[in-house]
Amino acid sequence: MKIGLFGYGVIGRGVYTLVGELSKNYDVEVTKVFDLPIKKELLGDKLVTEIDEIINDKDIKAVVEVLGGHDLPYEVITRSLKSGKSVITANKEVVSNHLEEFINLAHENNVSFCFEASAGGGIPVIRPLIDNIKVNDVNNIYGILNGTTNYILTRMDEDDLSFDDALQQAKINGFAEANPTADLEGLDIVRKINILSSLAFKGNIKNDDIYHYGITGINKEILNNIKSEGYVLKYVASSLRVNDDCVIRVEPTMVKPNHPFAAIKNEFNAVLFTGSTNGDLMFYGKGAGSIPTATAIVSDLVSILENRAYIDYKNERKLVVNKNISNKYMYYVVDENNNGKFIENVSDDDLLKSKFYARVL
Amino acid sequence: MKIGLFGYGVIGRGVYTLVGELSKNYDVEVTKVFDLPIKKELLGDKLVTEIDEIINDKDIKAVVEVLGGHDLPYEVITRSLKSGKSVITANKEVVSNHLEEFINLAHENNVSFCFEASAGGGIPVIRPLIDNIKVNDVNNIYGILNGTTNYILTRMDEDDLSFDDALQQAKINGFAEANPTADLEGLDIVRKINILSSLAFKGNIKNDDIYHYGITGINKEILNNIKSEGYVLKYVASSLRVNDDCVIRVEPTMVKPNHPFAAIKNEFNAVLFTGSTNGDLMFYGKGAGSIPTATAIVSDLVSILENRAYIDYKNERKLVVNKNISNKYMYYVVDENNNGKFIENVSDDDLLKSKFYARVL
Repeated sequence: MKIGLFGYGVIGRGVYTLVGELSKNYDVEVTKVFDLPIKKELLGDKLVTEIDEIINDKDIKAVVEVLGGHDLPYEVITRSLKSGKSVITANKEVVSNHLEEFINLAHENNVSFCFEASAGGGIPVIRPLIDNIKVNDVNNIYGILNGTTNYILTRMDEDDLSFDDALQQAKINGFAEANPTADLEGLDIVRKINILSSLAFKGNIKNDDIYHYGITGINKEILNNIKSEGYVLKYVASSLRVNDDCVIRVEPTMVKPNHPFAAIKNEFNAVLFTGSTNGDLMFYGKGAGSIPTATAIVSDLVSILENRAYIDYKNERKLVVNKNISNKYMYYVVDENNNGKFIENVSDDDLLKSKFYARVL
Repeated sequence: MKIGLFGYGVIGRGVYTLVGELSKNYDVEVTKVFDLPIKKELLGDKLVTEIDEIINDKDIKAVVEVLGGHDLPYEVITRSLKSGKSVITANKEVVSNHLEEFINLAHENNVSFCFEASAGGGIPVIRPLIDNIKVNDVNNIYGILNGTTNYILTRMDEDDLSFDDALQQAKINGFAEANPTADLEGLDIVRKINILSSLAFKGNIKNDDIYHYGITGINKEILNNIKSEGYVLKYVASSLRVNDDCVIRVEPTMVKPNHPFAAIKNEFNAVLFTGSTNGDLMFYGKGAGSIPTATAIVSDLVSILENRAYIDYKNERKLVVNKNISNKYMYYVVDENNNGKFIENVSDDDLLKSKFYARVL
């Protein structure tokens, strides 16, 4: 199978390398790579600088989209699917906004749309979740879904670093982008919990409807106070459904040291969901990084090569997001002097007036 | 699709119920159930008491084998595959002994052989492992693979129970069989780590070649001593490959409280393996119980219904098991007075002379 690759950044290079490895066992080859002219030296004749050169190539049966951003990836994905090519993407922004459209387009054109790498990076969680909801209901999902912020909180805790120093460490080690706002404020996590929740709850969810509160207000003194209360601080997305109502929140969250999330450290991610028949399932692995993400993409490619990539997402519920079906959550609300209090039944307005707050799980 | 069910015990009843649920979305029905005549009242005309009544039924395209034991399941599985039926089983004893034969038979007869429930119960781990090794190498696996023993160790630790009282609790709560020897001595775990290792390392492994040491020697004083050394005691299977040599051991194992295994409690199981490109992955869920196991079986059935159940196991390495490629493990060896010492480079003979021992992970 001939593959077109859109984007030759860190993930694209990982995909290119792993497909090379895969070609030892499968008839598969990346024949064209779309990127800027500057990549000519690296890619030689494989480089194309117009997306049409891949989309109009009838020999290319599948494309991998790792461009980043929204508009160009959206065009690439929709036009590729319409021209009868299967699509694999790691792009959480596009997938969270257009999941139903992409899956319908794939079905109409008798091709596959795969997005395992778009939530949870290298962790295989999309496929197990899809499989699971065919046999039972999944009505809640918890996730540590961002490597950068989990790395920062781990380093602050274990190396006694300030927030700024831990962020600096994350940048040096390649876990934080130059502009880490989307990570620190939870926007990256919003997109991932959207994808997982849409699949599990079988309805469309808007990113804008998901509540999120960042971790930038944390400091060492608050973290030490949380620790002395007997908790570990994590940045957690939680998603809960009752009938058509759901609550989806991304916020700093305190867990007991024996909670499975307490052991999720550094750039690792985890997704925990509860099946109505089989109980809690948790998936843990590297949520970020070039090669783990590329591994998830190439794993999707193998499922296409083996003709088992079919995904039948159903948008069958008119979900109402953040109708507050449960206001029984306990919160730890921090004042100007870094002192915290446990409070129940607190409004989001009051939470946002605090210096920092964390949900108690 | 018409399904034949072999065995109407606790798991079989769970499968029967879940297939009933599944028939709301798929054209699927259990038309015949093989069991003893005593089940007539429960099953009516669906009961058959000769296996041939299912195997020779040309309308039945897939069978579920949940009989338990070895000889009859082996006959049922091989004859069903040969007669062109896909087979789903949870039977670790049969699968660990005949994995290659079953997969080859399935391929020859153009049907599927599925065994997700045979290792890790309700945790989806077989499929992610198979997917993973198509993209990279997996050279080590660690597992908490037995619900009974993990439940016993958790209750001893958290409720300060004696071994006998914790075992009694496990029996009362349905987590231990009347004769729990296969669980307590590690034979059950041997079969599961065999299945996972055979798949990951791409070679056949004999159950008899896997080293195992039971947990019956534990007592409260030893457990307290382990705790005061700063460790949590778990019953762990470990499997490590270097080239064609591997070390596979099932033994009591001490982990630090921040190790992901420390949070795996009660009847929960976990499998941790390391991919050469994507790093550590861990899968966590209920390893035992009627409905979780039935969920894994029905999930396999969905993959058959959707034509994506293909598994291509390769026996391509002549594995030599328990050639001691690494004798660097640290052990905690307990004397007659329940006192332990940390020892490196100790032989298995010396370990077996102790009152109890645990590997230090």
